[in-house]
Amino acid sequence: MATAQRLVVIGGDAAGMSAASKVRREDPAREIVVFERSPHTSYSACGMPYFIAGLVTSAERLVARSPEKFREKYQIDARVGHEVLELDPTNQRVRVINLSSRSETWEPYDQLLIATGAEAILPKLDGSEADGIFGLSTLASGIRIQQFMDQQLPRRAVVVGGGYIGLEMAEALVRQGLQVSLVERGEQVMGTLDPDMGALVSEALREIGVELYLNESLTGYAAANGLVTAVVTDQRSLPADLVIVGLGTRPNTALAAAAGITLGEKGSIRVNPRMQTSAANIWAAGDCAESFHLISKRPFHVALGTVANKQGTVAGTNLAGGYATFPGVVGTAVSKICKYEVARTGLMERELQQLGLLYRTATIKSKTRAGYYPGAGSITVKLLAEQGTGRLLGGQIVGLEGAAKRIDVLATVLTAGMTVQQMVDLDLSYAPPFSPVWDPVQTAARQLLGNSD
Amino acid sequence: MATAQRLVVIGGDAAGMSAASKVRREDPAREIVVFERSPHTSYSACGMPYFIAGLVTSAERLVARSPEKFREKYQIDARVGHEVLELDPTNQRVRVINLSSRSETWEPYDQLLIATGAEAILPKLDGSEADGIFGLSTLASGIRIQQFMDQQLPRRAVVVGGGYIGLEMAEALVRQGLQVSLVERGEQVMGTLDPDMGALVSEALREIGVELYLNESLTGYAAANGLVTAVVTDQRSLPADLVIVGLGTRPNTALAAAAGITLGEKGSIRVNPRMQTSAANIWAAGDCAESFHLISKRPFHVALGTVANKQGTVAGTNLAGGYATFPGVVGTAVSKICKYEVARTGLMERELQQLGLLYRTATIKSKTRAGYYPGAGSITVKLLAEQGTGRLLGGQIVGLEGAAKRIDVLATVLTAGMTVQQMVDLDLSYAPPFSPVWDPVQTAARQLLGNSD
Repeated sequence: MATAQRLVVIGGDAAGMSAASKVRREDPAREIVVFERSPHTSYSACGMPYFIAGLVTSAERLVARSPEKFREKYQIDARVGHEVLELDPTNQRVRVINLSSRSETWEPYDQLLIATGAEAILPKLDGSEADGIFGLSTLASGIRIQQFMDQQLPRRAVVVGGGYIGLEMAEALVRQGLQVSLVERGEQVMGTLDPDMGALVSEALREIGVELYLNESLTGYAAANGLVTAVVTDQRSLPADLVIVGLGTRPNTALAAAAGITLGEKGSIRVNPRMQTSAANIWAAGDCAESFHLISKRPFHVALGTVANKQGTVAGTNLAGGYATFPGVVGTAVSKICKYEVARTGLMERELQQLGLLYRTATIKSKTRAGYYPGAGSITVKLLAEQGTGRLLGGQIVGLEGAAKRIDVLATVLTAGMTVQQMVDLDLSYAPPFSPVWDPVQTAARQLLGNSD
Repeated sequence: MATAQRLVVIGGDAAGMSAASKVRREDPAREIVVFERSPHTSYSACGMPYFIAGLVTSAERLVARSPEKFREKYQIDARVGHEVLELDPTNQRVRVINLSSRSETWEPYDQLLIATGAEAILPKLDGSEADGIFGLSTLASGIRIQQFMDQQLPRRAVVVGGGYIGLEMAEALVRQGLQVSLVERGEQVMGTLDPDMGALVSEALREIGVELYLNESLTGYAAANGLVTAVVTDQRSLPADLVIVGLGTRPNTALAAAAGITLGEKGSIRVNPRMQTSAANIWAAGDCAESFHLISKRPFHVALGTVANKQGTVAGTNLAGGYATFPGVVGTAVSKICKYEVARTGLMERELQQLGLLYRTATIKSKTRAGYYPGAGSITVKLLAEQGTGRLLGGQIVGLEGAAKRIDVLATVLTAGMTVQQMVDLDLSYAPPFSPVWDPVQTAARQLLGNSD
């Protein structure tokens, strides 16, 4: 076992610290150094909209483990405020700057793990250098938004982009009393759902007062005195004191690319199932690394904490001398948007068409509990299954409280390669406080088989 | 196809009416007659504790479809108040009594479906003929309890048996202001959980004021003026104005047995996967029929509406000339007991020991949401997996709101034959309002693999 070797990790959030912790558990003697440019380790990026909304009272509550805890409890040398500037695979070293002292050093490694994450896409456009325009990807960016709101007391916000982050932020800003507009290029918000399901979410946003501008694209910003004053689209100008740009994220892979490491989907670092990159002794995990889609059977990139934790644990197992592989994902995601819980997994219609797969769909409305039980809420389930074989290919759920977690059954069905008939046969739980006697996911499966009433 | 034939169904609840409806969908010309001895068709037996609790305001709300609806909308001749007294397989006929006119007729059939359900076990003991002692299995029995409570205004109730029905009824009676004691022969309530998990449920019952008498057995009753006054156990006498006996159910198979049809587990009717009995042209489905346990690979009996609906649909498909099979169950059940949601699937420790299977367990405590998100509640998950292979064998969940439906992931994993490592790899959904970043079921799987912190 390679004890007394030095593991260097770039990035101190989910993937990096999962890997570091796993190596420490397996190998108490390994030297482990983590360089993290922000002041934070192991925080919940997904929790930031709830911090902005005021549901989580301090940013510290989003931190799972501090650098001090990693040092003291795990003997992991977690150096925050340290940015890696260059990789030198030939000499097995990285160039690091201490962001407070500005001193640079070359740090040697025996193994290197790149876990640099992803950052919010902020297109360079007219006026985009103005203050008041924010992406949301790191804890630091969430704190900056909150500080801006405290200082500038914005009244009108425009959110650009109707994905998870954009919608969660739109709701958070409404909750904080702002007047909120949302600009989305697609015909509905939540482009990871088919448009028929996305339309339900659009409606819920309108109900809480969000002005939606669909089929409309960002072209730039207006500013005065260095502060943003409006979002400009291809159709209008929307006054704004605060702009949240939720146009997705981009893997932080400039360092890897400069070192000649092979990139893959959306510029993420190509890895094999053990999380090895194309360069010797260099591994990658998390939002910067490529994944694999178990249904399309193609390389896939996804920036989610769940995947980062899994990839980090796999990388850590291998870095510790064990053997583990990351099989891939099925594209599961969930979010709470206004009154609705929204979830999806597998492939959607557009993706199936692109792959040339023939499919059937069924969409049903049911209840989250027995119809007669207090608090039964509406739930809409859409399933997509392969024509001929009946194999499940995807599913989408929009519904009231208690709806969304049912997506996990579909994710498991997809992973197991089960058919819609096998879904109907599943021995799912039933009692009136939890479900109708046929769970809504099974009602949708029955509909697809033509067995509904 | 066998149109113009006559299908006779005995029993008008879940299994019988699922089958009848399925036959009607597939064969508009088939003559379908259903004999049901109670006044009700297609009702939710599982909803009765909530009717007694006052959460569901009328018994009619528990009826999904009335006999009139079956007749008018589906052309199914649903004859309530008609009891079948005898089967005559040789001459393909059944003897039926009209319970209001007391007239008897022999009714011919081409195919017969036995869907006679199960009834509450009410042991014949000293004093058991007194009024005020009730089982709970049919809608009529629930209405009788409610009428007794309205008329007699009982103050002290004793529930005998700590299974789902007993516990749901104990909570319902506390909610109606009664002083409630519960007698359970086992060391903990909820004998379908391992005792360590059952202890959590016992504690929740004590918290709402239910007096528990564990390791104690019913021996009889005391009565005065024809009304029950006490429950007598092997250790004491407990004053009682109302007694609910929740000692499980027994399949209603006397008719089948008298006709020479082969019985199986717990006296249920043995069926093949198409739901055919040992007698020609006689089928069975629902609480009176046997099932198959997909994990123990043995015949199994379970009285649950979900299984009844599935078996009924399978029987209906076959009776309509199609081909369908019922693969079996994994033993999933869920219930809301006081503050807790309680769920189980697969095999428990005692069953694994009886089968001689070597297993490992892990039990973890986690949260139903991200720890920092408002409303995050405790959840305890126990997993059981086969030693060596790591195949999941069972799981149990006790937790606050949002905990229980996760059992469906475990039920799907069991059905697919997945290992605990494959559970860890599952792409389950995560967002702070729904789960920690590792779903609690995956945290338990990680613990079992030794991957936890």
